[in-house]
Amino acid sequence: MKTEELDPKDLETFLEFLSFPSVSTDGEFEKDVDACADWLVNRLQAMGLEVEKHATRGHPIVVARNPHKKGRPTVMLYGHYDVQPVDPLELWKTPPFEPSVIDGVVYARGATDNKGQLLAHLLGIEKTLAEEGELPVNAILLFEGEEEIGSPNLDPFLAAHASELACDVVAVSDTGMVGRGIPTFTYGLRGIACLEVSVSGPKVDLHSGIYGGAVANPATVVAELAAGLHDAGGRVAVDGFYDAVQDLAGWEREQWAGLPDGDAATLKETGVPALFGEEGCNSYERRWARPTAELNGIGGGYQGEGSKTVIPREAMLKLSFRLVPDQDPESILELVSRHLKKYCPEGVRMVIAPGHHGKAYLTDPFSAYGKAAQQALRETFSAEPVMIREGGSIPIVQSFKDTLGVDTLLLGLGLPDCMAHAPNENFPLENFEAGMRLNRHLFRALAGVGAE
Amino acid sequence: MKTEELDPKDLETFLEFLSFPSVSTDGEFEKDVDACADWLVNRLQAMGLEVEKHATRGHPIVVARNPHKKGRPTVMLYGHYDVQPVDPLELWKTPPFEPSVIDGVVYARGATDNKGQLLAHLLGIEKTLAEEGELPVNAILLFEGEEEIGSPNLDPFLAAHASELACDVVAVSDTGMVGRGIPTFTYGLRGIACLEVSVSGPKVDLHSGIYGGAVANPATVVAELAAGLHDAGGRVAVDGFYDAVQDLAGWEREQWAGLPDGDAATLKETGVPALFGEEGCNSYERRWARPTAELNGIGGGYQGEGSKTVIPREAMLKLSFRLVPDQDPESILELVSRHLKKYCPEGVRMVIAPGHHGKAYLTDPFSAYGKAAQQALRETFSAEPVMIREGGSIPIVQSFKDTLGVDTLLLGLGLPDCMAHAPNENFPLENFEAGMRLNRHLFRALAGVGAE
Repeated sequence: MKTEELDPKDLETFLEFLSFPSVSTDGEFEKDVDACADWLVNRLQAMGLEVEKHATRGHPIVVARNPHKKGRPTVMLYGHYDVQPVDPLELWKTPPFEPSVIDGVVYARGATDNKGQLLAHLLGIEKTLAEEGELPVNAILLFEGEEEIGSPNLDPFLAAHASELACDVVAVSDTGMVGRGIPTFTYGLRGIACLEVSVSGPKVDLHSGIYGGAVANPATVVAELAAGLHDAGGRVAVDGFYDAVQDLAGWEREQWAGLPDGDAATLKETGVPALFGEEGCNSYERRWARPTAELNGIGGGYQGEGSKTVIPREAMLKLSFRLVPDQDPESILELVSRHLKKYCPEGVRMVIAPGHHGKAYLTDPFSAYGKAAQQALRETFSAEPVMIREGGSIPIVQSFKDTLGVDTLLLGLGLPDCMAHAPNENFPLENFEAGMRLNRHLFRALAGVGAE
Repeated sequence: MKTEELDPKDLETFLEFLSFPSVSTDGEFEKDVDACADWLVNRLQAMGLEVEKHATRGHPIVVARNPHKKGRPTVMLYGHYDVQPVDPLELWKTPPFEPSVIDGVVYARGATDNKGQLLAHLLGIEKTLAEEGELPVNAILLFEGEEEIGSPNLDPFLAAHASELACDVVAVSDTGMVGRGIPTFTYGLRGIACLEVSVSGPKVDLHSGIYGGAVANPATVVAELAAGLHDAGGRVAVDGFYDAVQDLAGWEREQWAGLPDGDAATLKETGVPALFGEEGCNSYERRWARPTAELNGIGGGYQGEGSKTVIPREAMLKLSFRLVPDQDPESILELVSRHLKKYCPEGVRMVIAPGHHGKAYLTDPFSAYGKAAQQALRETFSAEPVMIREGGSIPIVQSFKDTLGVDTLLLGLGLPDCMAHAPNENFPLENFEAGMRLNRHLFRALAGVGAE
């Protein structure tokens, strides 16, 4: 089946799914997130699956299943229907929630992360059911609406429904391929720990002429705190930060040496004028196997046109730390908080708000399910799969391990230039179509392994 | 004459003047600014002065004069009838353009900056004319409507009318008194140099999981650049920054040692939890006699609610440097630009945009006019005047020096808690009344010195 053979109905379904502005982080879109969940519920019911929409303290979780039979492996397919915010909106070439198809690529917020990948599996299941009347595995479909805000309600949900959700393995397509047509099995993810810092000083914005030089400037303080997180060699300067970090295994180095040039890819994909990062590491190591301290947002004072000579009364930082085995997120947040308190001057008040966090994840790519997944990738793409880690964090993968006791197979369909989280996010229809086939190959291969 | 003896007519005139919402920065108030200028014109004509209203590219400049006579000094009195915007409006306890008198204090936008101080002089002149039939000096009254937006049309106006505006000295009441009842002569002001820095790296916002650790983060870069502007002792860390800085003279240290506690005043007025600044200096030195590097704005990445794990494509800084004698603004901007370029990493692109700038100002308080001004303050307040500098910049003072070749006598009537530029701006009637008397004493004292 070639891209041009994509069923127009499937494309129509995809564009419909993408048109919901299901931005989970912004209360303004609460109804849209809910409407998107309802759309999924209707879709799943129409496929003849048993569906439940579960309310949470936040956005709903949708669970569907086929009739389960003894002796078949139970496979949970996870995806998320929420999306990142769209700003900066002015950099989008097409409206983010009015999907456009240009040269075989769909442009919209959520196209790759994660609606396109989720829906490809869902339509793959639909096709199998239509053609074969049943699936070869016991399937549980779990779709949440809070992945982009750290899945705050998923853990309690998994714990509360552990027996209904019991399964042998989880499959997720929410990662990337290292290049077009290169099937990619991801066996590791970085963890994450988020932190917000607010610094306030004077009771109101001050005239920087009248008081400048005699009071600590909150904007300068946050800049200094942010700057103090790294040393001159690009390493995180927080005491104890690297204590639990594990080195790469020999087979990993070998695998990664065979990948397309990661430094060149990083330069090309990002457009930066030069690479940067921890000394002695290449780009794949920096992106997948080394921990980071990243400033996601900084703000204080006047940011409009022209000048306004104020000392702002407050300023803030949004920080996230990407973690690798065996760093513990809570310990890292504690170390960072201690570091910030140590370096915060007494002329201001600081409030530290730890945010969402999750451990790094590693699974054994040589397990029976791991090999089956690679077989499915091989059949789908007619090429030998590569084994990589990824730099992003999918905390739920750790949740599945902790709560349900199962590993997760990460079978990404995104490409490096799919612009997840950025303006002009997109998903090639060729990958959308491959995703449908991947689902059929995957379920067959897992059925071959059987229940654990 | 005591406050309670304030002529009700003068109070009525004051409240009338304050009721014009003459906000110069907002086009919405253009007619109100103009109406306020007309009100001044009428007032000045009624006093028997010769008045001209000059249109500019912005708001009008009003010039008035008495019949000039040979042998008398020509004194230009400067003031501005425009006011700052009122936001945040919700913090005002009384409507900003419906002046309220509470316990002998007038609350309204412009009460102290500058309508109250301007009008006190004007009514002082009116009284002298009414009682003595003429003024003891050749007076030029110059009132502009664009001070709060940087007086963009004043320099060209001064240049175009230099011969008509020729004078021996300028007097301005638009500064502050160090405390209630303490007559204050301001002989120095800091200069200013502004600079904006933009840093960009990746072509779009990046996912901080996917690329974090392998590319320079523009938000981190601006934070590091901002942090690098100071050393651990609170001094500006730019090479050569202090080369031209002049130490305080012995008499200045003596004068300032006799002032009310500046550290306590700074803490009280700003509400900061602790003082901060260059080691070895007290608050007055830090605010009036030491140069600064102040971060007026910093911004990059996600600043909204919740978290967004991006590496932003760009980030920015708005910097201003307060300058002291003999720092040259253009040289300082050059030194700072060199410093920023030196420390900017190669993984980003940086654009530096120098902004507006002006030299620091110092006049000799022991000149004949300076002594006369202090004599007027002494007589008005029945107390020995103090001699201070101020930390802010009043570019027009430098303009008078450059274009008309004359010094400016800064005889402030505002108090530290008059809330200029802030909600609940106010002016005590006791200062309003003192201002009228100050004008009479000042003109008499300057007449005693004669023309230069």
